[in-house]
Amino acid sequence: MKFTLLGSGAVGGVPLYGCDCPACQRARTFKDHIRRPASALLEYAGTRIALDAGLADFGQRFPSGSLDALLLTHYHMDHVAGLFEIRWGKGASLAVHGPVDDKGCDDLHTHHGILDFSSTLEPFQCLVINDIRITALPLIHSRPTLGYFLEVDGARIAYLTDTVNLPATTLAFLQSHRPDLMVLDCSHPPSDTPRRNHNDLNLALQLHKSIAPLETWLTHISHDLDAWFMAHPNALPLGVLLAHDGQIWHGLMPGDQ
Amino acid sequence: MKFTLLGSGAVGGVPLYGCDCPACQRARTFKDHIRRPASALLEYAGTRIALDAGLADFGQRFPSGSLDALLLTHYHMDHVAGLFEIRWGKGASLAVHGPVDDKGCDDLHTHHGILDFSSTLEPFQCLVINDIRITALPLIHSRPTLGYFLEVDGARIAYLTDTVNLPATTLAFLQSHRPDLMVLDCSHPPSDTPRRNHNDLNLALQLHKSIAPLETWLTHISHDLDAWFMAHPNALPLGVLLAHDGQIWHGLMPGDQ
Repeated sequence: MKFTLLGSGAVGGVPLYGCDCPACQRARTFKDHIRRPASALLEYAGTRIALDAGLADFGQRFPSGSLDALLLTHYHMDHVAGLFEIRWGKGASLAVHGPVDDKGCDDLHTHHGILDFSSTLEPFQCLVINDIRITALPLIHSRPTLGYFLEVDGARIAYLTDTVNLPATTLAFLQSHRPDLMVLDCSHPPSDTPRRNHNDLNLALQLHKSIAPLETWLTHISHDLDAWFMAHPNALPLGVLLAHDGQIWHGLMPGDQ
Repeated sequence: MKFTLLGSGAVGGVPLYGCDCPACQRARTFKDHIRRPASALLEYAGTRIALDAGLADFGQRFPSGSLDALLLTHYHMDHVAGLFEIRWGKGASLAVHGPVDDKGCDDLHTHHGILDFSSTLEPFQCLVINDIRITALPLIHSRPTLGYFLEVDGARIAYLTDTVNLPATTLAFLQSHRPDLMVLDCSHPPSDTPRRNHNDLNLALQLHKSIAPLETWLTHISHDLDAWFMAHPNALPLGVLLAHDGQIWHGLMPGDQ
């Protein structure tokens, strides 16, 4: 089993266009610090499932037939931009599972081409693709949004972005199905009052404590949060990681549990 | 003066996702044959004006402050995709001139960020940016669409995509203001009946004959047209060129007129 974080950036990414803050300057100098649109890839026993498609080069990364399915969290542009080009393609259709959202993004639903949006998911609905069990988890965002709970090869991954806090039902689910790896929206530096649409670091750490996964990766990271961590390099507790693009998790190792 | 065709591709580009036709196979093997979203750049005496912004790496190509303006032909995704990331940027705003289209593309107008869409253009309206005179020319497409007539350094360039045929008023304008370089939509191989929304080769060659520019570059080229030209390599008359990404025109040379 291999779970790869393809992108860990907030909308606008890092570096942010026209921004000269220390985090944006660093990302222009050292490519390892670039943050692309939040997205991931799960691979297991020949099955490949992508989570979100905001990467501009989504089609080059995943040639026709190379994915078994795409799980969409929601229809904001930084999560679907890579679909607009490939929809006009030829060959096998790509099953896109996501929330019910009649608006979609621009004309993506009207002119869907090779994309098959017919299999939407309701909150807590389960889907099994080969040996991977997927449960849709409602999140709290400005659009209908689903997180995904992935059970594969004895391991549990919760992918939870975009969201600010979690619905009580999702929190209860995660507390009773404790994930091994939790990938969690944390766009903003610590804030006294919760931000709109995305977690700040205080809220993300509260959720980590409350759910108690083996490991939490912070994702959907803004340049502001990167700059804050440059000034506070030791701010994270054990088990919480500021993720980066390309970060890989290989599942449970002996002694993890 | 330097006019660069940044992209010459139809929607979906070349190679088309999942397609194994000879033109798509060739573009996968030889990068010079890749066709990106139709777009261009005009540079003169320190002024830089982009035409359309469908390139995924628009922000990387044009860092903040590097453009004096952007001329939009219309709001289809393959002409505006590159704006969704940079709108969240910081620093100088970017003036975007384009047709009146209340729908725009997804939420681009609602959340415009650093993009300034306030200066729309009516058909045949003129705009002067430094020493470049721009006239908006109505085109015929599925959305409100403008071509642009650019007068700079004694040369005349007509940029005419996306369109199928031309409105009588635009044709008359071009016949009386004969362009030196005409960049013209030609998405499809020759067809007995005109296609919807884009020119086929027959119609494009009729327009070339009727307008009589010094030179015509065909753009917005589909993989079907590329494949057709692989089978008919000598099909173009003198003065008409199948353009490629990166093609450059340096203005009139002595003896051109």
